Amino acid sequence: MVVVMEKNASDREIELVQERLRREGFQIHLSRGVERTIIGAIGDRSRVNLEFLEALPGVEKVVPIMKPFKLTSREFQESDTVVTVGEQRIGDGSIQVIAGPCAVESREKYLEIAQMVKDAGATMLRGGAFKPRTSPYSFQGLEEEGLKILAEAREMTGLPVVTEVMDQRSVELVARYADVLQIGARNMQNFFLLREVGRISKPIILKRGPSATLEEWIMAAEYIVSSGNPQVIMCERGIRTFETYTRNTLDLSAIPVIKRLTHLPIIVDPSHGTGKWRLVEPMALAAVAAGCDGLMIEVHQNPSEALSDGPQSLTPENFSRLVTNLRRFAQNGRH
Amino acid sequence: MVVVMEKNASDREIELVQERLRREGFQIHLSRGVERTIIGAIGDRSRVNLEFLEALPGVEKVVPIMKPFKLTSREFQESDTVVTVGEQRIGDGSIQVIAGPCAVESREKYLEIAQMVKDAGATMLRGGAFKPRTSPYSFQGLEEEGLKILAEAREMTGLPVVTEVMDQRSVELVARYADVLQIGARNMQNFFLLREVGRISKPIILKRGPSATLEEWIMAAEYIVSSGNPQVIMCERGIRTFETYTRNTLDLSAIPVIKRLTHLPIIVDPSHGTGKWRLVEPMALAAVAAGCDGLMIEVHQNPSEALSDGPQSLTPENFSRLVTNLRRFAQNGRH
Amino acid sequence: MVVVMEKNASDREIELVQERLRREGFQIHLSRGVERTIIGAIGDRSRVNLEFLEALPGVEKVVPIMKPFKLTSREFQESDTVVTVGEQRIGDGSIQVIAGPCAVESREKYLEIAQMVKDAGATMLRGGAFKPRTSPYSFQGLEEEGLKILAEAREMTGLPVVTEVMDQRSVELVARYADVLQIGARNMQNFFLLREVGRISKPIILKRGPSATLEEWIMAAEYIVSSGNPQVIMCERGIRTFETYTRNTLDLSAIPVIKRLTHLPIIVDPSHGTGKWRLVEPMALAAVAAGCDGLMIEVHQNPSEALSDGPQSLTPENFSRLVTNLRRFAQNGRH
Amino acid sequence: MVVVMEKNASDREIELVQERLRREGFQIHLSRGVERTIIGAIGDRSRVNLEFLEALPGVEKVVPIMKPFKLTSREFQESDTVVTVGEQRIGDGSIQVIAGPCAVESREKYLEIAQMVKDAGATMLRGGAFKPRTSPYSFQGLEEEGLKILAEAREMTGLPVVTEVMDQRSVELVARYADVLQIGARNMQNFFLLREVGRISKPIILKRGPSATLEEWIMAAEYIVSSGNPQVIMCERGIRTFETYTRNTLDLSAIPVIKRLTHLPIIVDPSHGTGKWRLVEPMALAAVAAGCDGLMIEVHQNPSEALSDGPQSLTPENFSRLVTNLRRFAQNGRH
Repeated sequence: MVVVMEKNASDREIELVQERLRREGFQIHLSRGVERTIIGAIGDRSRVNLEFLEALPGVEKVVPIMKPFKLTSREFQESDTVVTVGEQRIGDGSIQVIAGPCAVESREKYLEIAQMVKDAGATMLRGGAFKPRTSPYSFQGLEEEGLKILAEAREMTGLPVVTEVMDQRSVELVARYADVLQIGARNMQNFFLLREVGRISKPIILKRGPSATLEEWIMAAEYIVSSGNPQVIMCERGIRTFETYTRNTLDLSAIPVIKRLTHLPIIVDPSHGTGKWRLVEPMALAAVAAGCDGLMIEVHQNPSEALSDGPQSLTPENFSRLVTNLRRFAQNGRH
Repeated sequence: MVVVMEKNASDREIELVQERLRREGFQIHLSRGVERTIIGAIGDRSRVNLEFLEALPGVEKVVPIMKPFKLTSREFQESDTVVTVGEQRIGDGSIQVIAGPCAVESREKYLEIAQMVKDAGATMLRGGAFKPRTSPYSFQGLEEEGLKILAEAREMTGLPVVTEVMDQRSVELVARYADVLQIGARNMQNFFLLREVGRISKPIILKRGPSATLEEWIMAAEYIVSSGNPQVIMCERGIRTFETYTRNTLDLSAIPVIKRLTHLPIIVDPSHGTGKWRLVEPMALAAVAAGCDGLMIEVHQNPSEALSDGPQSLTPENFSRLVTNLRRFAQNGRH
Repeated sequence: MVVVMEKNASDREIELVQERLRREGFQIHLSRGVERTIIGAIGDRSRVNLEFLEALPGVEKVVPIMKPFKLTSREFQESDTVVTVGEQRIGDGSIQVIAGPCAVESREKYLEIAQMVKDAGATMLRGGAFKPRTSPYSFQGLEEEGLKILAEAREMTGLPVVTEVMDQRSVELVARYADVLQIGARNMQNFFLLREVGRISKPIILKRGPSATLEEWIMAAEYIVSSGNPQVIMCERGIRTFETYTRNTLDLSAIPVIKRLTHLPIIVDPSHGTGKWRLVEPMALAAVAAGCDGLMIEVHQNPSEALSDGPQSLTPENFSRLVTNLRRFAQNGRH
Repeated sequence: MVVVMEKNASDREIELVQERLRREGFQIHLSRGVERTIIGAIGDRSRVNLEFLEALPGVEKVVPIMKPFKLTSREFQESDTVVTVGEQRIGDGSIQVIAGPCAVESREKYLEIAQMVKDAGATMLRGGAFKPRTSPYSFQGLEEEGLKILAEAREMTGLPVVTEVMDQRSVELVARYADVLQIGARNMQNFFLLREVGRISKPIILKRGPSATLEEWIMAAEYIVSSGNPQVIMCERGIRTFETYTRNTLDLSAIPVIKRLTHLPIIVDPSHGTGKWRLVEPMALAAVAAGCDGLMIEVHQNPSEALSDGPQSLTPENFSRLVTNLRRFAQNGRH
């Protein structure tokens, strides 16, 4: 890291900063300029918390140079991580299509839509048993009953199932039924939960928080990986910006950036990312063109009857058309 | 709510929307204009999730009219909620000053700073025993040992103590030691945790999430209150914007807005809100001028040795000066 | 529009609002509910400025229903606007590739790169003669000399040239040399300039402002069209968000939204939109997959010697590869 | 500045960067670490555009160390700039109150409100003759007729007048009538206009752009000062964020930051900053508490009849109350 001293920092202040850095195990390079003195410190940023330096007298600012993540970084592991779920592989160049309704609403409806999305070409099933809802008065999910329905759908279709886990107390329960556990956007920095899913041996889909920088998101993955679970799949689902026409702003540039900075696979959720079903197909195709490893798509038999996220759900017909376009496109358009 | 139909919506589509609304218990008012048909629906928004309407054919958009919160709203309760903590009252026009280090680092250091901030005029103590940290490699707090130190500091100073609870499993433990439990910004939408602290009988400080709208923040308070705990204190601590000079952008307009929309008290954390100790005093004074009920201020004997958040911590001397200015100012400047 | 009255608004206040609305030519529909009275007003929002209503006593909020734009709206003109520039057509389903350096730096270098990008498959040339620069000490462009070089490059290559106009005094001058005038992001709401380019008969590329909502952007186009020039090409170039890894956040969902709300063509600038040359190709392909009508790409012989925007410029080799992938992709991947 | 090389940068690449930096006149300090090589470059950043470095092979990122502004910086001039307007002084510790309607609507109404705000304690008058409006169909101002009315109000009240100039062609005209020229938020990076007002000898109020960082805003001031006009008054008027309850998010931390980084005075516009008249008084008091040099307040005889910005305008009675509270507060509460 580089420590920039204030213009009129005293020699004593400059010396003090160097002492502290040496104490933390850094090598020091001092550059005295006409207007500023700059102290370069070379060592392992991840071991120590360096923000304290900004509180030292005479320090103007501290500029981190090294990235704070390790195990998830492309430098640590050059080859792509490929996550295996049943017969599916995420991160090997193929495109996984994870589809289903936002929430599991009933056994009959879920089994029906599961078969429909399978027939249309989905490779994995999704559906929420625990639902994070802004309002305490909204439908919160069928909980364990929902998990059982998901497991039944897996039996019926042969497709793996993905579902969200919202608190560390339920991790064991959810892991008993699901093939892949999803950490929702609002829980991206629920560190107890991250560590808990880091201790199981099932793949984790880690959604980006609505105001998380790419670095914070990768650090959340680092929590999981450093707790022992290397099977992390990043999921871009839109960030919060000033624009209100769409529910979120889908940041597709996250795809090539995550692929460059880390070795983890990344999928995209254009349903939450836009909040409008009409935008799902163009953004799904765009995500694939930008190089993602898969998509999460909300599909509902009758979006206007959905208990949550109706406006962003595709009908089975629209979903089927999307998969058809996607497959043609992926064959020809990816390089 | 108002449902705006598309320009070329058919009579059948307009009829369908009305049917659905009536089924949900709404009264209907239809306005057919030259360019648009608008359907007004009057009833209780909080009971049902209305977004499904946007998925109905022919619907252009749905505009909510009523606020989605009830128990926390000023309309539900006209008089201010006053939260009592020991001898302190938050929300009665006085200004509480909650001070202490970001994290409890050791018994000796905490007891020392606790006495210092008390002598300087703090009315409550703060200190983290569980620390939410972006990096898994950073100091995560002393946990129960930290809670015991906080309790000892309360014995010694007679001041109530505030500390963060990060997961629902620890709520009982933290409530055993602390006088006020704090929900951190990253957990503002950890709904399991909100419901859990809604079941205890201690006051809760609810920090605003870094990208939470005012309405989402109030809905998080609604989770706590609707679970049975009416003693909620809102805490503005800055939102995430494009500006990088400050750690967050402290949104002081939240103070008069929260006071208008709800009956809850609101305090301000200028330390996290700015991330720079030099900005803490001017923003603290500004927060008081805007009408807040209290402040949370980070104070550390030696900010450059702090294990977390050093750059935004005041020295005891600077804190003492702040309290002096604040008291003079509050006597004269508030109306 | 819908006017929501406060809970305790008096009959007199409700009457007053209705009077004002009638005076402005609106038809009124009154809905008295248990908790709120809502006044629907049907008429032409574009003629009057309705925000005044929020200042009337007893009014809680005013919710606009109709879109404020007219001439640019898809409702006003159902068929796509196709802009013709020389032999090129923008908006007819083809993909225009506008390429060249950020700034015209010298005659020799510009003519060389112009030929290079033509050979690689560019269909139009770009290059700045007037450069908006954050710092007064940065290179501000060759001005008229740059325009002459652009005209010479057109003669040489046969390709139309696009260049930015920054102030209304220069519109005539720039229009004398260029085939398409570009309004830069920082000038998107320079209303004098918008009206000025609305009076000429050359196509205008209108870049989205870094913090402009889609509606504000369309309103800027409405300025141009309502001044007499219907040949407007929208250009998404990234919005400002909290993310700092990329220079801007490229909002590709703008493509299907602009195509739905308006009849105007839309192109994308992934060079400014990301600020990093490595991200240009994946985002260019994604933009095409999402349905855009063209791309603006910065290309420089030697990006590290560029006087501006080097980090986001492609080399001619990288550009050539991009065009090849694009052509293959556009043939197969677009539906 | 500091150039961070990629992990596997070759010696040749490292040498190349050093050569380029030396050519630009920088002194070089090389630090070879185990994981990264860092090149420190000491010299004058303002003379050259350094972003080109990021385009050099082997460069990971370039971190600027020195601030890019000079003439406006506190380091360049330690003492506060005090701007004199008639008998008023901005920046000397006093608080200027600039008040009036958003737009000059008619002679009678303007002269009436001018007298009213003077009687209530305003020290300067404001009013728009040229109005930047999002919609081409909204009222755009009385133009020169409005300027004449402003001049007449000055004669009548003895107070200086402030008005906006929107394009460089009108600078001379506006300067003929007004005492202070205002650059609106949307024009903050209209560089031709900035240079033009840099050539006159009247004070300039420079509003912050809705998505301008503090550094970009200071650079805009640098344009004016470096063109020859040192009388610049910064004006914070809110930034664009995800929050929609307020029109903008008023960033009061800008006050102490601008005072620390520059020697320029800073005023605050809580009317535009919030968009709601009920928030104007608390935010005005907060701005004064945070240390600003003045306020711009919109006042209208009858806000609901205002041709623009009614919802954020105070009545003369509310304005009078605000000034009374402000004066009492400023006497006692400022330190």
